[in-house]
Amino acid sequence: MSNLILHPMKEIKIIIEGEHLKFVSDLLDKVKATGYTVISNISGKGRHGFHEGHLMFNDASSEVMIFTVVPEEKVEPILAGLSPLFDRHSGSMFVSDVAVSRRDRFSEGKK
Amino acid sequence: MSNLILHPMKEIKIIIEGEHLKFVSDLLDKVKATGYTVISNISGKGRHGFHEGHLMFNDASSEVMIFTVVPEEKVEPILAGLSPLFDRHSGSMFVSDVAVSRRDRFSEGKK
Amino acid sequence: MSNLILHPMKEIKIIIEGEHLKFVSDLLDKVKATGYTVISNISGKGRHGFHEGHLMFNDASSEVMIFTVVPEEKVEPILAGLSPLFDRHSGSMFVSDVAVSRRDRFSEGKK
Repeated sequence: MSNLILHPMKEIKIIIEGEHLKFVSDLLDKVKATGYTVISNISGKGRHGFHEGHLMFNDASSEVMIFTVVPEEKVEPILAGLSPLFDRHSGSMFVSDVAVSRRDRFSEGKK
Repeated sequence: MSNLILHPMKEIKIIIEGEHLKFVSDLLDKVKATGYTVISNISGKGRHGFHEGHLMFNDASSEVMIFTVVPEEKVEPILAGLSPLFDRHSGSMFVSDVAVSRRDRFSEGKK
Repeated sequence: MSNLILHPMKEIKIIIEGEHLKFVSDLLDKVKATGYTVISNISGKGRHGFHEGHLMFNDASSEVMIFTVVPEEKVEPILAGLSPLFDRHSGSMFVSDVAVSRRDRFSEGKK
């Protein structure tokens, strides 16, 4: 029945230019996030200071959204790790509360 | 003006292997969730105990994210209904708070 | 270090038929949302009173999800602006709490 208990975690959504995906995935590996999901066919306009509001609406491959769920203590290391990227390139990170059904899947020491 | 009132609901995101989509959609129909949205072109790595961290990064069709919004009392039946799937296959369910503009669209007895 | 501070904002997800995307993007421009992201390859079933529950599962291009993050005071104008669309067409708007790393990117007066 323990599968029916929900545990509080943090959901992180990172939106970046696709060419920086490896930077982010390496960071998530480094902080031992247990996994992530990438939504790659997204487009956007004007978000986060994109080159003077350059319209990228028809350039569907230019952005990706990376979705991960982590314990709260991993939020700050991820944000700190993204700082060098965000200093030089467009991108943003969004953090929200989420509950997950299986906490063990998000803890360190598990494959 | 009633359209401008926001009502608290629960947002559910379910990430599973694409081959199990019908299992989930049947479950959502059974609990009378009024609808769902499927994001199908996603990829991921290592999430939720995927086969020893097998890298599926180039296998974009292997996972889907199912997004639905339901009244709070439907969360537990959905979680319980997913249990048999999660016992044998990779996947996770995330629950968060959300407000919707039109509650009637999410209640039973409406098409 | 200011990049490491998280600021509370509102995350808005709007799900509509793809043909109404321009209506929504014009609205977001009008209320000076600083940007948005569009996830376009989604499918759905029965959500929000779709034409008598017409199954659109194989019609992947029919819906889009628009994702934006705004200060709280922009939520009501966006909801009000969508009202005429929702009165005549299917669609829904979901609002949730989110924290962002760089508030300045979401304020007016910035490109």
